[in-house]
Amino acid sequence: ARPRVGYFYSGKSVMNFISEYIKKIKVKDVKRVPVVVQENTSVYDAIVTLFLEDTGTLFVMDEEGYLAGVVSRKDLLKIAIGNMDIHKVPVGIIMTRMPNIITVGPEDTVYQAAKKIVEHEVDALPVIIPVKKEGDTTSKYKIVGKITKTNITKIFVELGNY
Amino acid sequence: ARPRVGYFYSGKSVMNFISEYIKKIKVKDVKRVPVVVQENTSVYDAIVTLFLEDTGTLFVMDEEGYLAGVVSRKDLLKIAIGNMDIHKVPVGIIMTRMPNIITVGPEDTVYQAAKKIVEHEVDALPVIIPVKKEGDTTSKYKIVGKITKTNITKIFVELGNY
Repeated sequence: ARPRVGYFYSGKSVMNFISEYIKKIKVKDVKRVPVVVQENTSVYDAIVTLFLEDTGTLFVMDEEGYLAGVVSRKDLLKIAIGNMDIHKVPVGIIMTRMPNIITVGPEDTVYQAAKKIVEHEVDALPVIIPVKKEGDTTSKYKIVGKITKTNITKIFVELGNY
Repeated sequence: ARPRVGYFYSGKSVMNFISEYIKKIKVKDVKRVPVVVQENTSVYDAIVTLFLEDTGTLFVMDEEGYLAGVVSRKDLLKIAIGNMDIHKVPVGIIMTRMPNIITVGPEDTVYQAAKKIVEHEVDALPVIIPVKKEGDTTSKYKIVGKITKTNITKIFVELGNY
């Protein structure tokens, strides 16, 4: 008989094996609940929300509840040490705004999400679904979750737990 | 012949396989260069360093160059919105101080590091080596690297790249 077992133990094949498994994990199966604020939320209130909700990234919704922007701890820190009144400045002013946000879809793989996180140097991605209403020329996006570095670190631990 | 190939394809065994591989990755092989500041560095200068060095966690050294503490973006954000003068307050006042820091050694596995990151809800761990000088009753620690969530996310991507 062919030594097929060896096939799985040889370097490249083992790695292909792991790679295939990792690429099966979908965003929709591991996404977490995003913490959201409104565009008119003050920077101060956003920072308080960050601490109360124990999160690293805030997602900003417009008046209709669609994704408008993303705010990171560093965005908030930059404003906090600046000269603006953080009680008056709304997060809508300082957020990264659509379409400049790096996003991911529920059917994408966590591998794709992790690649985007690394390439674009962000902590978290919103998981979005496009919603095109009648008469609209551009899509709006509903936020249905988030994928974060914490998320991926937890998956890494779970893969090692067996 | 025994159908040994099937062994590797059966659910639990595949997972054991991945788990074993993951547990072989050592901290010393993937650790990154930590960004360090001194205990007397002002909170303002620490924040500037955070942006200039494009990092998320600062490690604080004492006068002898041993690890004294760790400062996160959230630690800095908390102080930045408070009433203290961030130009005058040194990071030594606000940092998490040894022995309350979660650490990892170069010979530990990245799996162990990832577990600590998840369990203790931190972004980064200093990689340390204990140094006991003659006459000392307690160990001092030299910081030789860091393991971060970014780090682990990159490993996850590499595992999927094959």
